[in-house]
Amino acid sequence: MWVQGILLVIGLWGSHDFGVAASSCGAQAEAHPGYDICEVGVAPSRDERRVWDISHAYTPDMPVWDSPEGLGDYLWLAYSMKNGSLANNSEMKMGTHTGTHVDAPGHVFQEYYEGGFDVDTLDLKVLNGHALLVDVPRDTNITAKVMEALNIPRGVQRVLFRTLNTDRRLMWKRQFDTSYVGFMKDGAQWLVDNTDIKFVGIDYLSVAAYDDLIPSHLVLLKSKEIILVEGLKLDGVDPGIYSLNCLPLRLVGAEGAPIRCILMD
Amino acid sequence: MWVQGILLVIGLWGSHDFGVAASSCGAQAEAHPGYDICEVGVAPSRDERRVWDISHAYTPDMPVWDSPEGLGDYLWLAYSMKNGSLANNSEMKMGTHTGTHVDAPGHVFQEYYEGGFDVDTLDLKVLNGHALLVDVPRDTNITAKVMEALNIPRGVQRVLFRTLNTDRRLMWKRQFDTSYVGFMKDGAQWLVDNTDIKFVGIDYLSVAAYDDLIPSHLVLLKSKEIILVEGLKLDGVDPGIYSLNCLPLRLVGAEGAPIRCILMD
Repeated sequence: MWVQGILLVIGLWGSHDFGVAASSCGAQAEAHPGYDICEVGVAPSRDERRVWDISHAYTPDMPVWDSPEGLGDYLWLAYSMKNGSLANNSEMKMGTHTGTHVDAPGHVFQEYYEGGFDVDTLDLKVLNGHALLVDVPRDTNITAKVMEALNIPRGVQRVLFRTLNTDRRLMWKRQFDTSYVGFMKDGAQWLVDNTDIKFVGIDYLSVAAYDDLIPSHLVLLKSKEIILVEGLKLDGVDPGIYSLNCLPLRLVGAEGAPIRCILMD
Repeated sequence: MWVQGILLVIGLWGSHDFGVAASSCGAQAEAHPGYDICEVGVAPSRDERRVWDISHAYTPDMPVWDSPEGLGDYLWLAYSMKNGSLANNSEMKMGTHTGTHVDAPGHVFQEYYEGGFDVDTLDLKVLNGHALLVDVPRDTNITAKVMEALNIPRGVQRVLFRTLNTDRRLMWKRQFDTSYVGFMKDGAQWLVDNTDIKFVGIDYLSVAAYDDLIPSHLVLLKSKEIILVEGLKLDGVDPGIYSLNCLPLRLVGAEGAPIRCILMD
């Protein structure tokens, strides 16, 4: 059944990336007992699913929280072939809430921080699955009224909120800008009370509007069931439903972590 | 067709995680023109695909290359609520080849380093797709003879090589151990010449055996088409075929990057 499922999935997408030449299967089957490597596919072909990278590249010019100066030189070549090393080896230093990143409950709740609710406790099943990309009206923060008007159906667990931040290309500007768009406290409360959303993604460094910075975070993180991914790169993607993969670094004890996220159709 | 595909995929997996209550669809359809949110599913249900985390957590006691002392204190709380900050904010410092990580061609080729073949050029389609987890015989490095005996079919693009390193739990030991298992140069050359593998994953800090450290890396990275993921956590997973997602940080200019990888069935 599993193999049949894979074959059907492959058929549905019109292509696959794990073809096995049928003629070469006899010997391989013996070398791989316990699973049916010969029936995965019948011929090599390319994976034609589209991929959108919705993470920002880390660069010295990217904005960091509350600073006019940007990230700066976070990366350096500690061992260099040019200077006689066998290989090049870079080192890095940055805040865990830099660029595209995730917040864990310990970010704004001291008791959760002390209780170990770090980024390594975040549920991979929430971070990976189908997601809805929506456009937020461009003239407002995300209030209860805005959330209601977005009309996100019950059952939708992951939403990427694209806002004026993307149009203004704030994540491409070195200087931190407090006028970014985010959740007001009542918008956060509406989300908690009236949706099934467990993954909130947004296109600047905080899901919360600057004026409701801590209150909105508190509302969203209190249950420890909602994951916040901030600093997403949401330009150039149509609104709609995608397959989302978000994988943060396993920084044990940290209340934030750099994360890489992609969409596939 | 797209929506039908999704519905069928959902059916195949026997469950889904993006159900939308049919009764609530009228108003939502108006709020989400351009894609058919109401036909994605008919009722909420849980995603029952299994997930295996094949990345190691970053801890002070994890091994780092050629050191007896391990990673040490790579993470610190720069801003602490306990000390009056509005939120907890940690910072981190580490080598880019720490823990579960990826090598880019610039790691061992100076001309590739200078040419910009950094981790941000690595193909997301190679890093994400079906992968084969195989057990390598426990009494040997990965030589041409071993590679031949593994009998990996043409068409297989991604392979996770589980070795004695996993049995010895080397990634759980602070002290770096040069006796780990990896590719000898002839094994690397056999892979390049006789397989379609573009993703090589292994369970200690280098794909290359210590005695062939640079030669094996050179053979594998020369074409710039093979991605090396090192320091994977491959215990507790059956050999076989999985859906693999590997997402490295977008460290522009870096020849290595921390990466998070998961398997799903």
